[in-house]
Amino acid sequence: MPAVKLTYFPVKALGESTRLLLAYGGQEFEDFRINPETWPELKPKTPLGQLPVLEIDGKQYAQSLAIGRYLGRKYGLSGADIEEDFEIDQNVDFVNDIRARAALVHYETDEVLKEKKHEDFSKNMYPAMLKKLDEIITKNNGHLAAGKLTWGDFVLAGMFDYLKTMLRQPQLEQQYPSFKKLVDGVYALPQLAKYLAQAPKTEI
Amino acid sequence: MPAVKLTYFPVKALGESTRLLLAYGGQEFEDFRINPETWPELKPKTPLGQLPVLEIDGKQYAQSLAIGRYLGRKYGLSGADIEEDFEIDQNVDFVNDIRARAALVHYETDEVLKEKKHEDFSKNMYPAMLKKLDEIITKNNGHLAAGKLTWGDFVLAGMFDYLKTMLRQPQLEQQYPSFKKLVDGVYALPQLAKYLAQAPKTEI
Repeated sequence: MPAVKLTYFPVKALGESTRLLLAYGGQEFEDFRINPETWPELKPKTPLGQLPVLEIDGKQYAQSLAIGRYLGRKYGLSGADIEEDFEIDQNVDFVNDIRARAALVHYETDEVLKEKKHEDFSKNMYPAMLKKLDEIITKNNGHLAAGKLTWGDFVLAGMFDYLKTMLRQPQLEQQYPSFKKLVDGVYALPQLAKYLAQAPKTEI
Repeated sequence: MPAVKLTYFPVKALGESTRLLLAYGGQEFEDFRINPETWPELKPKTPLGQLPVLEIDGKQYAQSLAIGRYLGRKYGLSGADIEEDFEIDQNVDFVNDIRARAALVHYETDEVLKEKKHEDFSKNMYPAMLKKLDEIITKNNGHLAAGKLTWGDFVLAGMFDYLKTMLRQPQLEQQYPSFKKLVDGVYALPQLAKYLAQAPKTEI
């Protein structure tokens, strides 16, 4: 079995999908959660100046969605053909667009503008995007795409707490039961039980 | 030949990579450039409330990067194996990160904050990201990944004028000759000549 190490901050956020996919694939890995204070020192040593970084037998892989697609192909969680692969990619990028919008507010350092943006997006942007996502997951029987479990489900499940925090919607899954079905479905996979039993509990 | 239509705004930006890929693939297509004033009416009829939308024999495809990967696989512009595919995906997402950062400034409606952000990013963010991108393209012999022409090159070439505008660096390719090599290499492909000869000239 290859030597695998995942380096990320001590949260789920954009790193958890990789951890979950490795667990699903039965891949032992070093779950290296860095002290955020050491990030400036580590940053120049990463492939793109970003985390997460996955290391497999010394080769480094960056960008969480690209890693998700790669592990999805390794572990039988991609589409059956290029049409299904497209559908996963499209819907993953849509989820990522929602995350990016929410991050734009969440990481705004000007407090007045932050609240203004949050109000604006909460009224004019999030509802339509979340409704669309709900329609997609409902149509796909509790999955993000292709009507079945794919690596895309791991992306949404892994970042779900992070997304709720940034959207400031802690009860999001009660408004959209389809989201709960997808997330619970991933976390109930028996392949993940061992990892989840020992993984640190984190807010986001 | 399937009936293909690409719907996007009358600019290159995030739609041009699809137009270039279709041209490369020898695929005739309707290049439908909407009047931005009609967008609110069209928006709810699109798959995700976003453009571009590609339509192939009535089936709709959204999300420009997902479309790029899909057409890349159709036209022989993807990787030779999952390692190369990963590398393309990783580097495309990195380019997209640079674009998203610049867009965050470009579309900021608060003018004071916009200038503050532009200064901040121009000092603390863009240089390191652009230098990294330059290293990547130089290492890949004028390509974005895998040391050869892939759909990733079309993504960067298609959005290059848009990116320069948002970064406010109209001479970007003079600072980074590797970028020029990549972009010029795509636009010089003989398969694109017919499309380029009749495509409207646009600033971004």
